[in-house]
Amino acid sequence: MDDQVVVAFAPEGQMSQVPAGTSLLDAATAAGLQIDAPCGGQGRCGRCKVTVAGEGLERRANARLTAAEVAAGVALACQAFVTGPVEVTLPPDRDEQVRPHGHAAAEPQALPVTCDWRRNPAVRTYDVEIEPPSLDDNASDFDRLRRALAQQHGITEVRAELPLLRGLSRDLRMAGWKVNVALEMRDWVYGTYLPPRLIRIYPSAFGQRSMGLAVDVGTTSIVAYLVDFETALVVDTGSAYNKQIACGEDVISRIIYARCKGGLRRLQRLVVETINDILAELRPRNRIEHYEIQEVVIAGNTTMTHLLLGLDPRYLREEPYIPALTMPPKLVAGELGLDVNELARVHLMPAVGSYVGGDITAGVISSGMYAAEELTLFVDIGTNGEIVLGNKDWLIACACSAGPAFEGGGVTHGMRASSGAIEDVWINAETLEPSFRTINDAPAQGLCGSGLIDLLGELLATGVLDKSGRLDRELASLTPRVQVSDGGVAQYVVAFADEAGADHDIVLTESDVTSLLRAKAAIYAGYSVLCRGVGVELADVQQILIGGAFGQYLDVEKAIRIGLLPDLPLERFHFVGNTSALGAYTALLCVNVRHDVLDVAAKMTYLELSADGTFMDEYMSALFLPHTDLDTFPTVRDMLAARGSHKRRTP
Amino acid sequence: MDDQVVVAFAPEGQMSQVPAGTSLLDAATAAGLQIDAPCGGQGRCGRCKVTVAGEGLERRANARLTAAEVAAGVALACQAFVTGPVEVTLPPDRDEQVRPHGHAAAEPQALPVTCDWRRNPAVRTYDVEIEPPSLDDNASDFDRLRRALAQQHGITEVRAELPLLRGLSRDLRMAGWKVNVALEMRDWVYGTYLPPRLIRIYPSAFGQRSMGLAVDVGTTSIVAYLVDFETALVVDTGSAYNKQIACGEDVISRIIYARCKGGLRRLQRLVVETINDILAELRPRNRIEHYEIQEVVIAGNTTMTHLLLGLDPRYLREEPYIPALTMPPKLVAGELGLDVNELARVHLMPAVGSYVGGDITAGVISSGMYAAEELTLFVDIGTNGEIVLGNKDWLIACACSAGPAFEGGGVTHGMRASSGAIEDVWINAETLEPSFRTINDAPAQGLCGSGLIDLLGELLATGVLDKSGRLDRELASLTPRVQVSDGGVAQYVVAFADEAGADHDIVLTESDVTSLLRAKAAIYAGYSVLCRGVGVELADVQQILIGGAFGQYLDVEKAIRIGLLPDLPLERFHFVGNTSALGAYTALLCVNVRHDVLDVAAKMTYLELSADGTFMDEYMSALFLPHTDLDTFPTVRDMLAARGSHKRRTP
Repeated sequence: MDDQVVVAFAPEGQMSQVPAGTSLLDAATAAGLQIDAPCGGQGRCGRCKVTVAGEGLERRANARLTAAEVAAGVALACQAFVTGPVEVTLPPDRDEQVRPHGHAAAEPQALPVTCDWRRNPAVRTYDVEIEPPSLDDNASDFDRLRRALAQQHGITEVRAELPLLRGLSRDLRMAGWKVNVALEMRDWVYGTYLPPRLIRIYPSAFGQRSMGLAVDVGTTSIVAYLVDFETALVVDTGSAYNKQIACGEDVISRIIYARCKGGLRRLQRLVVETINDILAELRPRNRIEHYEIQEVVIAGNTTMTHLLLGLDPRYLREEPYIPALTMPPKLVAGELGLDVNELARVHLMPAVGSYVGGDITAGVISSGMYAAEELTLFVDIGTNGEIVLGNKDWLIACACSAGPAFEGGGVTHGMRASSGAIEDVWINAETLEPSFRTINDAPAQGLCGSGLIDLLGELLATGVLDKSGRLDRELASLTPRVQVSDGGVAQYVVAFADEAGADHDIVLTESDVTSLLRAKAAIYAGYSVLCRGVGVELADVQQILIGGAFGQYLDVEKAIRIGLLPDLPLERFHFVGNTSALGAYTALLCVNVRHDVLDVAAKMTYLELSADGTFMDEYMSALFLPHTDLDTFPTVRDMLAARGSHKRRTP
Repeated sequence: MDDQVVVAFAPEGQMSQVPAGTSLLDAATAAGLQIDAPCGGQGRCGRCKVTVAGEGLERRANARLTAAEVAAGVALACQAFVTGPVEVTLPPDRDEQVRPHGHAAAEPQALPVTCDWRRNPAVRTYDVEIEPPSLDDNASDFDRLRRALAQQHGITEVRAELPLLRGLSRDLRMAGWKVNVALEMRDWVYGTYLPPRLIRIYPSAFGQRSMGLAVDVGTTSIVAYLVDFETALVVDTGSAYNKQIACGEDVISRIIYARCKGGLRRLQRLVVETINDILAELRPRNRIEHYEIQEVVIAGNTTMTHLLLGLDPRYLREEPYIPALTMPPKLVAGELGLDVNELARVHLMPAVGSYVGGDITAGVISSGMYAAEELTLFVDIGTNGEIVLGNKDWLIACACSAGPAFEGGGVTHGMRASSGAIEDVWINAETLEPSFRTINDAPAQGLCGSGLIDLLGELLATGVLDKSGRLDRELASLTPRVQVSDGGVAQYVVAFADEAGADHDIVLTESDVTSLLRAKAAIYAGYSVLCRGVGVELADVQQILIGGAFGQYLDVEKAIRIGLLPDLPLERFHFVGNTSALGAYTALLCVNVRHDVLDVAAKMTYLELSADGTFMDEYMSALFLPHTDLDTFPTVRDMLAARGSHKRRTP
């Protein structure tokens, strides 16, 4: 009996004839195919999974395969040996769409970015067996490691830094000269890739996981995604309020705080502490050690980036508003004090200007705007509204100082979007009685941004409020909801104390309305100036992408009604989630995207609104509900006309 | 009258015709010539010096020219304007021989290395005028600096790190946007040059000097050269005992000390403290600030390098004697704690093996051995004798554990080469009375290495000592200088207590002789094994280069007499000084040499003597004065024969 066996490889049909007992890995090599096996064929990394049809296979037991996989015919190519003819299906060798959440998440979200993260990862681990030294072979420990990496994995050049080298001799000997090394594979300077950089050496017998961290550093909240480089999935997420809040709620007050003695250092420490607090939850929950987090990408606005790096933010606030830098320097985690591998590379998303930061660059990436054919408007509404207009060919951005009204600041009963915040409001047009919903259905505490927008829109639609933001004082005699004080101050009661379960009524005053009008006018003027700047009409915009935590809870129809969003068909609006964190996640995983990020930041034109002569006119025109020129809001005009006729019928 | 003027340029005779009032700098450019003017033609850097013949010149006053220079026709090309025909001699545009000391030093020493340090410096400073920002031009501070460097100096890419960026915004504004920047020009990774790296930003109005530091970290002493990158000269030197001596006199005891808790950290701190102590003298003496020392090169043996870097030295001492690394990693001064610019690049000379270190690589460079046509033997004798054999085509090295005898250790009245050490000894053949000279002519305290060698040689030549190192006991009855104790221990008295001005006699015992024989035998066996290893005879060696502090005081003839140096014509021996410090100086200045250093370290074969089967035989044969086989020392053989016949006549 002939002991040669035929192995066929799908999907392309290559064949090889090999002696019985040959591993599938070797059989693939004989057929001219390459299967990824970073552990060197020891059955430990699980990367060489293939699917096998036919019985001619002898498997070795292997911890990396689940029972379900074995049942489905999945085998490790290095641990499966042919005994008879088999057909082997190789894993797909192509760019894959990146999606942060696997089957565990309720709604898997796919990003409009593809990359070859399996074959071209940012960080990679390799098993290396090193020849122990002898008098006849007395190369240094580092040279032995280099030699083994070259011989076993074709990596001919490798860099290492002092903190790692200090433990090298001991590490190699403790591991019995069998180590697993983590390498930064894609370190580059001005477009040139540098040789791989050693991040961690660990005994092969124990192995290490290779994880990354994507962080969105917001002025209010910090969100972190823990990402597994083996699977590309977000294995866990964590978030916390930015501890810098103790030094001021918005970026301006923090910039002022930074000027106090020790202020900048304290702000730097607080943001790092916040990230470390999140890590202190993520690590034990996922059985991850510090050193296994081997690369970090961080997105934040320009002020947050300055404070995280310890750069003086002073000139961000003083005209002409100049950042120290927009392209952050090369860093490792130890320089910032992050509780991850001290040698982990930290990438910060590049900014465009003082008020269009890395969070927006990240958003333009992860929302797919940078690759869009259609004319796209990207909006991130917070204390600052950041707006980007453009498509794959050009991008123009501006930032509008909206003030904290949409985050609940400067409004009598405004609050952040936390438990007990009123987030939806409807007003009965006949009785003018409101009904509302709170976050977590908790007793009402106040109104968050989406609740405020809802309320404004409903008050306008029911005629309680007029175009100029004035409450109809005559209604005070018809309903207890409209109240006018002795001083002539008018307000609408959303919830009486007993309805709210609070010790006070929850109201919206005319002065609150003014704050909200100023905020939405600034943002609307932003759109208008951007469009005028490039000579397009708002109506030409084919999609509007709404990012940020705030966007998720926004009722587009009501936001149009008050003139916060432009009056375009509803199907053009899309919510794109926390695009800052998603952008960081995308850049963490897809090294090609890191170049796109730089291109995007470099090509985006930053329009400084305070230097634009038309901004103030646009702003003044937008200080109405929805706008001075009702023709820019045709659906609202029609609604108001209908309401007007309805109202006229009432008396 | 025509106001066009002809300017001729020597040495190559280019001409240009320019309007009267044109600067020589512009005239040279018009003639297609390039004159170096890093300050941008502001008359501040003094680099554009030319020599002018003819009267047609109007000079502006300039602080960079001495009266003597002006009298000799030297002018700054950017500050000299033509009024009539002149002939201008340009500075030489070619590699220059490097010499560490200028006219100030008594004996200027030229190194056998040439480089283009003026045109191709390791660190360079540039004056930059930056456009202040405005609302219309709101690029970041770093981008403004990059743009100005590109426009004014053609430097299109520049890198910066966090510590510098943290002060950038303030620095630029405090300097009124006119800054002098120091750039590391020649940073490279695996043979690829990286873009220039910012080391320091300083107001142009004040200016900064650009200095380097070359350091020889010896087990006993540390020597530092302060080098001016403008002139390439060593402007000052400093030295101190290595503070690590408190933790052990030799490398072995320090390796043992490093294993104690906190021992390695303490040793690391002590060596840095020693360098910082030297800097604390050099800086004020030369009116230099920390930040003006902008690049550092350090040479030391492998143990010293490990301790300076904080690498575990344990395996250097345990068979098979493996260093953690031989090619030190990329570093900046801040990582080590050196009191220089924290961003200054620190280069450590690469080692060959555990006992052939960066000091020897440095020596092979600065002694010129690596470029020699002749078969050369380089010897550095200390506690370890390091020996290199070869020429420009090949190099082989070994280290012999000579023990501390030549440094005065383990010898009854041995001492280091400090004040009061007997360094020269002559013995009257008739009376057997010695005469001697001490360092600084101070009262005799003991014998240093060169004194011991002299003494051994004289005792052999006068027959007091025989070939096997035994004192002639019969002489005890003829001279009080030879003494035999009741226990049969014999000794020679070099100085009675009253001659020495000490409270004891200074003697050499037979047991001291044994220690010295072992030391010299180890070194001689080293030469022999190296030669045999490559199949050449010691007699084929065309030059012997003797490095190290010890070498300077060595009497070659007497060292041959005892068999420490091979018996070759005296004209083949050359003292090459502190080749370790000179090598560091050379690499500091000549960036091309830094590549040579790596090549040298990589190509040098390291012969581990303890793994060589012939070493022990050679060692045993060399445990005689001068050697078992007298034919290997013909001149000594003849001398002894003459003495023998002379002696026979005496009784």
